[in-house]
Amino acid sequence: MATVNDILACIHTFAPEYTKEDWDHVGLNCGHGDRHVRKILVALDPFMDVCKEAKETGADLIVTHHALIWTPGFVTDQDEQGRCTLFLIENHIACINAHTNLDCAPGGVNDILAAQLGLENITVIDPKGADAHGKPFGLLRSGTVPAQPLSAFLAHVKKQLACPGLRYVDGGKPVRMVAVGGGACAGEMDKAAAAGCDTFVTADVKYNQFWQAKELGLNLIDAGHFFTENPVCQYLARQLRSAFPDITVEISRCHTDCAKFF
Amino acid sequence: MATVNDILACIHTFAPEYTKEDWDHVGLNCGHGDRHVRKILVALDPFMDVCKEAKETGADLIVTHHALIWTPGFVTDQDEQGRCTLFLIENHIACINAHTNLDCAPGGVNDILAAQLGLENITVIDPKGADAHGKPFGLLRSGTVPAQPLSAFLAHVKKQLACPGLRYVDGGKPVRMVAVGGGACAGEMDKAAAAGCDTFVTADVKYNQFWQAKELGLNLIDAGHFFTENPVCQYLARQLRSAFPDITVEISRCHTDCAKFF
Amino acid sequence: MATVNDILACIHTFAPEYTKEDWDHVGLNCGHGDRHVRKILVALDPFMDVCKEAKETGADLIVTHHALIWTPGFVTDQDEQGRCTLFLIENHIACINAHTNLDCAPGGVNDILAAQLGLENITVIDPKGADAHGKPFGLLRSGTVPAQPLSAFLAHVKKQLACPGLRYVDGGKPVRMVAVGGGACAGEMDKAAAAGCDTFVTADVKYNQFWQAKELGLNLIDAGHFFTENPVCQYLARQLRSAFPDITVEISRCHTDCAKFF
Amino acid sequence: MATVNDILACIHTFAPEYTKEDWDHVGLNCGHGDRHVRKILVALDPFMDVCKEAKETGADLIVTHHALIWTPGFVTDQDEQGRCTLFLIENHIACINAHTNLDCAPGGVNDILAAQLGLENITVIDPKGADAHGKPFGLLRSGTVPAQPLSAFLAHVKKQLACPGLRYVDGGKPVRMVAVGGGACAGEMDKAAAAGCDTFVTADVKYNQFWQAKELGLNLIDAGHFFTENPVCQYLARQLRSAFPDITVEISRCHTDCAKFF
Amino acid sequence: MATVNDILACIHTFAPEYTKEDWDHVGLNCGHGDRHVRKILVALDPFMDVCKEAKETGADLIVTHHALIWTPGFVTDQDEQGRCTLFLIENHIACINAHTNLDCAPGGVNDILAAQLGLENITVIDPKGADAHGKPFGLLRSGTVPAQPLSAFLAHVKKQLACPGLRYVDGGKPVRMVAVGGGACAGEMDKAAAAGCDTFVTADVKYNQFWQAKELGLNLIDAGHFFTENPVCQYLARQLRSAFPDITVEISRCHTDCAKFF
Amino acid sequence: MATVNDILACIHTFAPEYTKEDWDHVGLNCGHGDRHVRKILVALDPFMDVCKEAKETGADLIVTHHALIWTPGFVTDQDEQGRCTLFLIENHIACINAHTNLDCAPGGVNDILAAQLGLENITVIDPKGADAHGKPFGLLRSGTVPAQPLSAFLAHVKKQLACPGLRYVDGGKPVRMVAVGGGACAGEMDKAAAAGCDTFVTADVKYNQFWQAKELGLNLIDAGHFFTENPVCQYLARQLRSAFPDITVEISRCHTDCAKFF
Repeated sequence: MATVNDILACIHTFAPEYTKEDWDHVGLNCGHGDRHVRKILVALDPFMDVCKEAKETGADLIVTHHALIWTPGFVTDQDEQGRCTLFLIENHIACINAHTNLDCAPGGVNDILAAQLGLENITVIDPKGADAHGKPFGLLRSGTVPAQPLSAFLAHVKKQLACPGLRYVDGGKPVRMVAVGGGACAGEMDKAAAAGCDTFVTADVKYNQFWQAKELGLNLIDAGHFFTENPVCQYLARQLRSAFPDITVEISRCHTDCAKFF
Repeated sequence: MATVNDILACIHTFAPEYTKEDWDHVGLNCGHGDRHVRKILVALDPFMDVCKEAKETGADLIVTHHALIWTPGFVTDQDEQGRCTLFLIENHIACINAHTNLDCAPGGVNDILAAQLGLENITVIDPKGADAHGKPFGLLRSGTVPAQPLSAFLAHVKKQLACPGLRYVDGGKPVRMVAVGGGACAGEMDKAAAAGCDTFVTADVKYNQFWQAKELGLNLIDAGHFFTENPVCQYLARQLRSAFPDITVEISRCHTDCAKFF
Repeated sequence: MATVNDILACIHTFAPEYTKEDWDHVGLNCGHGDRHVRKILVALDPFMDVCKEAKETGADLIVTHHALIWTPGFVTDQDEQGRCTLFLIENHIACINAHTNLDCAPGGVNDILAAQLGLENITVIDPKGADAHGKPFGLLRSGTVPAQPLSAFLAHVKKQLACPGLRYVDGGKPVRMVAVGGGACAGEMDKAAAAGCDTFVTADVKYNQFWQAKELGLNLIDAGHFFTENPVCQYLARQLRSAFPDITVEISRCHTDCAKFF
Repeated sequence: MATVNDILACIHTFAPEYTKEDWDHVGLNCGHGDRHVRKILVALDPFMDVCKEAKETGADLIVTHHALIWTPGFVTDQDEQGRCTLFLIENHIACINAHTNLDCAPGGVNDILAAQLGLENITVIDPKGADAHGKPFGLLRSGTVPAQPLSAFLAHVKKQLACPGLRYVDGGKPVRMVAVGGGACAGEMDKAAAAGCDTFVTADVKYNQFWQAKELGLNLIDAGHFFTENPVCQYLARQLRSAFPDITVEISRCHTDCAKFF
Repeated sequence: MATVNDILACIHTFAPEYTKEDWDHVGLNCGHGDRHVRKILVALDPFMDVCKEAKETGADLIVTHHALIWTPGFVTDQDEQGRCTLFLIENHIACINAHTNLDCAPGGVNDILAAQLGLENITVIDPKGADAHGKPFGLLRSGTVPAQPLSAFLAHVKKQLACPGLRYVDGGKPVRMVAVGGGACAGEMDKAAAAGCDTFVTADVKYNQFWQAKELGLNLIDAGHFFTENPVCQYLARQLRSAFPDITVEISRCHTDCAKFF
Repeated sequence: MATVNDILACIHTFAPEYTKEDWDHVGLNCGHGDRHVRKILVALDPFMDVCKEAKETGADLIVTHHALIWTPGFVTDQDEQGRCTLFLIENHIACINAHTNLDCAPGGVNDILAAQLGLENITVIDPKGADAHGKPFGLLRSGTVPAQPLSAFLAHVKKQLACPGLRYVDGGKPVRMVAVGGGACAGEMDKAAAAGCDTFVTADVKYNQFWQAKELGLNLIDAGHFFTENPVCQYLARQLRSAFPDITVEISRCHTDCAKFF
């Protein structure tokens, strides 16, 4: 039967550690690498609701995009990170994360997001290198859509990602070539513009970044951190099911964005 | 007739430099301190539209909250900051800003925001010091409202600040004691919670911060950077009109938030 | 029934956090602060043998001098720190440590060591401050012994601390005034000499430090890290038994120095 | 008609950015890159007298060696840098500088200085690399002169550079092989000596540097920052006239050294 | 008979260590503090000629302003600092220096320089503190002279300090109130101007500093590092003769500035 | 007759500077490189007893492993480093050291130690590079011994290095493959274990390092800094005698470890 370490090794075949950002830490966050796994729960974050869902559904392992331990330190009930870590360890549930390696790797977060939005002619913007198969990897993706007004594309994004709302700035151009960067990638908007994109879909956009996009003449769409990254969970589950047919792989049913629009 | 320097000195009476954060630079951003001023345009930001409005309305001086020169360097048409600076200097328009000194000073951004939201029993959270009149200063304010469900308070905020939309997380408590921090103050949410507030109104909130609030059991409301800070323009204009009755003081008519909800 | 937090609070009455060195982290290392405690195991270190002893003897809490988590990071079976942490959490055993606060506090590691060696007229060398009762605190202690040749004092130290062996340099003086610093304190030898001591008992002494002592004319005795600090366990146990008469407090029976002499 | 950007591009053909020192910033200092240029004023520094000369002679652009903006910040009349920048922008005069790129590039400041002093067999001392044509670049140049006593060479330097005075130390050797480094290059004297030079012409020499040269047995001549670098203005003017025959290029008539000898 | 340590203690009565700049190291540079002293040689610098003069005149100790060991490291004949240090130690000559403590202390380098120039109403500019006698100390001094044209004051300085030449910039004002800072103090010119001085006498002035003075309207005179500081040698000799009547104290006859004017 | 510089050059043929660690400084520590040498004293350290032995035996040069000047600064009788340096210079004795270059170079400290312990199949663990002859260099060496219990190997080490005592931890394995690192190399134990060694001989081992070895299952033996490095003195003497047959080369008779066991 496959172990936690086997599953980590599998994840590193499609999201290799060398594709991650230098500052990031990924891999086994808590638990025993040599324990056997019967059931995996996949989720964007290992928040407490997800941890409890893992216990209730009998999962031995959580595989997430964001890390369980973000600020290393003591492991106590004094903070939420500690409470989640205690809960998982006490319930014999391991946790693996694939963060910026999964963002950057071919087929990862941003390729999934591009596909979800129906982009065509998808390429990596400003690649950081090539993987073992010679495929370029890097943070952002660009691709084309049939020329359309921004309002039509906004409706398309909202529907495809099932967002409760969008925030955006109108760069004054119709939508033809779109860059995507799931999560907080607005700091990369210069690269999107330099790659010839008229539109950039990302999340966690700040006031001055909306204005910066307007100055650049770039349509900038904040579709939400959760909604731009969560599609990767389907991909993760497919990969794991395919590699480990004897293991049950489920996607979290409870996890969604906690923020709402009014 | 009053000069640019006279107006800067007046601003420093109600937003003293010593109330600013250490990393911040405030004061005369461009132009001649000894030039006479006939007309002032007040705005939250000195973006290009505001610069053009100043020229069109014959203003000699722009007074803003955010700085014109944020990343010091050469002054050229290669970037938007340079283009705005060139435009103002070529058109003999000076620019003064009062940023974190106006956030923190008694009567400033956050007292105005608290008043706009109808808070009562307003106090400074975690004061950094006291001003020359013995009044405490610091970033956040707290105050009370009649106990109400979150949904009622959300409607109240939206109406009072004239926001096109809000993003929020429900902390699971009714609204009684509210903290406010105009602009991007979510990093201060621990202080708001420690001060006994059940609700915090700020802006530019990121994904993990919404979750952090949920863990804290804090209602966190992102009402927009522009809408939480722009009320201070009325205050700035009143102060300047009162001190300089011979000078025309106008508030920008064109400046608003460039981001929209969909 | 007392909780882990109650016990931590008690420890901080006799080893206050403000007496610790700035670089050090002390307190609850793992577990739940609100869990009730029936049995405490006291030991110098929370090594795996001690963790297993805690489980076998039914302890809910380990109280140690050295920290469980020294290099914060992920909590996995890839390294010994992670294995110990997993073991404790999986077995519902919390861990509290009192490190440099217990070294420096009045009555702590170094007062215990001084007493164990029979020093008289004990004072704090180079105090860092005074505690809430006005007692000075700091790292080293000095005290007097009846004048004797070094060889006699070496035999005394070996017997009193039950060391298997000592390493020392002969500073060329009889022993009259002795400084003590449990653990690796040889870097403080200048302070011991400046305080008028002819002899310094500490541990983990390096080659160049023995020579430095010889140059200073200081008898320097390395009595072992374990043997100079372990006497504090008796003190910790007494304090805890006295404060919590309903809790069973045991001292580790298995823990000793792993290094041997040949 | 050529624009400011065209002229900058031309300057970067003979003084490429990659030849500059890492800490230096060069290029367009103020103004619009897309404005047409009819007249250029060339000068060593963009001091206020030169700025006024540009206005009086109808120049659209100043090209200098030293930067206009040396300490980036706000652009106001509170300091001389700000006053000059305001003056230029208000009078629609752009400013380009070529600093250490022009020092190091083949044909630049130091080749011009070497030629002005009549050196033969000129080579680059300690080259940093080679330019696009394969020519080595770097800070210092060395070359030979007919063997002569130091007094004769001092008279030669004074005449060739039209200096009002020289400061020097006699290294005790006749002059045969000379290193040159326009401006403040005395910190490079070890390289000049290591290259076999008996004499080094530079500027801004400090007390301890004169003594260091005496110890090295190196004739060290401080011919003045202005007088060792200003010859490059003729070169700059020639290059610009040749590339842009339709543009009037003048060299500042007012700019000279403000320091005098007594 | 007095020892080297006795003489160092005496020097620290009139040039206390606490008046030095933080970055500076002063005191016994080489030799034995417990050796008796029969003869002292006083000089501005412990260069090799001075070291040899000490040996030839039978001095046991050199007292200088500048340090012997400026760049701590190995002590070998590979560099001039090492050669001087070896020479002194081999010849049993100790070396003490008093650098920025002597610059800043009451009665030190800058009070001597002010007196040498005949300034009246001498005060400390921007004092750093007060010494044990309550006298302010700090780097610069200011004082008044009878109003005179700059040319007259230049001749006065040249005569009083016996300089071979001066370099200066004309700030456009007659001379009435003069600041002095021996050695390389041009970086302090803002303080001199802010203190109301029209003229500043210092040394090692660089190109951009002359221009900065011109912009400030300050007459800036570079009278040479040696000539502005060497007068302190007379003061040092007087102090030492007075404190140690049995010791012969001589001032170096060979030491002068190595730089010459042409 | 050979000079100090000739001898340094010879040492750098078998312990090249490029094999040293980046933080280390090696070479001529004090004295004149151009002095002739008749007699060399070789010792592990240039402590005062060794300096006096050099004088008494008429040596012109000391060659050591550890540096004379470890903390660069003034050269005075205020500290032991200064007293030794003064003594050597006053007695015209130069000092050369070869520290980490001799540790890492082929044939140096660690190859000598490996040979002294009778290791076979000696290789460099984790080489840092290759020397001019293509031989790998680096800090540690590994080699094999006939399989034996730890107790037998301990007796062997004690006899071969003539140690008065050993400290060790039993890793639970018989001894077959041994890593050696003379001096304080316990921080490299992971590399020793990763290279497949069951046993590591080094010195200056600290409490937590013994425990770390136990966790790794590595037999860790602290044989003393002096006893693991001093064998290199024979090697140094052989090399120097071979290269300079006219020079008398002696090994210090007085230098030994100052620390003793009790």
